[in-house]
Amino acid sequence: MRSTLECMPCFLRQTLEAARMATEDPALQERILREVMKLTAEMDLSVTPPAMGRRVHQIVRELAETPDPYQQVKQRYNRMALRRLPELKAKVESASNPLKAAVQLAIAGNIIDFGVDGELTDQKVEETIERALHQDIDGPTLRQLEAEIQKARSILYLGDNAGEIVFDRLLLEQMPAEKVVFAVKGSPIINDATLDDAEQAGLTNLVRVIENGSNAPGTIVEECSPAFQELFESADLMIAKGQGNFETLNESPANLFFLFQAKCRVVSRHLKKPIGSFILCRSVCLNRVETKV
Amino acid sequence: MRSTLECMPCFLRQTLEAARMATEDPALQERILREVMKLTAEMDLSVTPPAMGRRVHQIVRELAETPDPYQQVKQRYNRMALRRLPELKAKVESASNPLKAAVQLAIAGNIIDFGVDGELTDQKVEETIERALHQDIDGPTLRQLEAEIQKARSILYLGDNAGEIVFDRLLLEQMPAEKVVFAVKGSPIINDATLDDAEQAGLTNLVRVIENGSNAPGTIVEECSPAFQELFESADLMIAKGQGNFETLNESPANLFFLFQAKCRVVSRHLKKPIGSFILCRSVCLNRVETKV
Repeated sequence: MRSTLECMPCFLRQTLEAARMATEDPALQERILREVMKLTAEMDLSVTPPAMGRRVHQIVRELAETPDPYQQVKQRYNRMALRRLPELKAKVESASNPLKAAVQLAIAGNIIDFGVDGELTDQKVEETIERALHQDIDGPTLRQLEAEIQKARSILYLGDNAGEIVFDRLLLEQMPAEKVVFAVKGSPIINDATLDDAEQAGLTNLVRVIENGSNAPGTIVEECSPAFQELFESADLMIAKGQGNFETLNESPANLFFLFQAKCRVVSRHLKKPIGSFILCRSVCLNRVETKV
Repeated sequence: MRSTLECMPCFLRQTLEAARMATEDPALQERILREVMKLTAEMDLSVTPPAMGRRVHQIVRELAETPDPYQQVKQRYNRMALRRLPELKAKVESASNPLKAAVQLAIAGNIIDFGVDGELTDQKVEETIERALHQDIDGPTLRQLEAEIQKARSILYLGDNAGEIVFDRLLLEQMPAEKVVFAVKGSPIINDATLDDAEQAGLTNLVRVIENGSNAPGTIVEECSPAFQELFESADLMIAKGQGNFETLNESPANLFFLFQAKCRVVSRHLKKPIGSFILCRSVCLNRVETKV
């Protein structure tokens, strides 16, 4: 997905939020914002928003001289999600369709996204969890997902944010653990989950976890490590969490299922769904193939 | 009031909205946005937001080669407000405190602000009118305003937006018309009212209307015409509508009453009032004097 003009003001809002997380010095915050403004003024709109986001947050980290401005919020939301996990597990177990409930709650966890909302609160997360099981999920796609999980010999699960990956455990438990590899980012970017978070979230005890070798807030396959690329090429089935993965992979011909919340106007318009919608969909190419069949 | 770092992304959002009003050509919209980004990257934060806004919208008008991108929405909201006027007049007349009701409705009209909200709808305006008479208005300041109106020999009313100025008629009717001069902008800026709008709104039949000689979306006195400056210096009492007038005049020692809705985080934080609050307040200097007394 290309970037749009609307992404430009959004990157600056994101930059300011990131700069405030990275430093308390207003002069440095200002320097960061001006630097990113110069970059976005020359920005190539043909790249995906996560490709641009990666450069923006790189500037924040470099100028603020901090490797991970979001470290604290990541830890906080990992802990918060872990506290809720037993109750959420019980919800899935008692649901008439446990896979559907797990998908709904995994998408609910996608609210923990500091790229889109630097003012996220526990209350917003709680509200999203509350409404999760009432959210529409595309029925035919859910049945396709169920069939694909059953027949897949290898599943690659592309994680998104810290905190959110605890919610992903609910969906991972609906899959044969030995077939799953869970991918996290190679190094910190916004509040995206890294190997540290996967350990905090207890994922490393459940499935094989790998770093993808990149710090784009999505998956830019050609920038990932050879090991990740090999897995990406060979996996029978991929679950891609979050808007960033949708933005970078929605035109891929791979067997991808996207699970996320539509969080900005650009994506909401692209999908013709209101902001806040719970999305379970496949890549453009597969949709086309299926329409033909 | 100085600009803040938060104003920067906000100017870009505003630029994109203005560019979309000014032209349907995406390439031109992009050129406008990039041009403004270069400007804001070098922006002097010590100027007020309206001083910066003036330069931003000048770029939009020049590059899109259109003198007034907001002409249609201005006319639309003038008409909409005129349709509601008889009913609003009746509300004021039947109110237990007509001045208070007129102030509340004049502030309600301030919702018609395309600088803050490029996606304003009739529904939002209706909702604001509905809640207007239930909004808190600072009681002591309202009593001060009443006393000042009674004793003033000359009143200068600084108008804000098209459409909104129809609502101002309700408050003007609580004043001796022969003492009032109503000021509009010297030429188009966002959806701020100009002389055309004052005619459409029927203001020119009620009071003396003058152009202030400037197109800043606020009042930068030193940039206004000598005639306006003279009135500004000599008026016993001034009513200043809108956030832009507050941002440019809140440190003035003049006898000013500000009436507006707090519409952005920066102003909301400055006033320690939630976004959407109905504000009736005086300038910083007068508040200080009164606290001393």
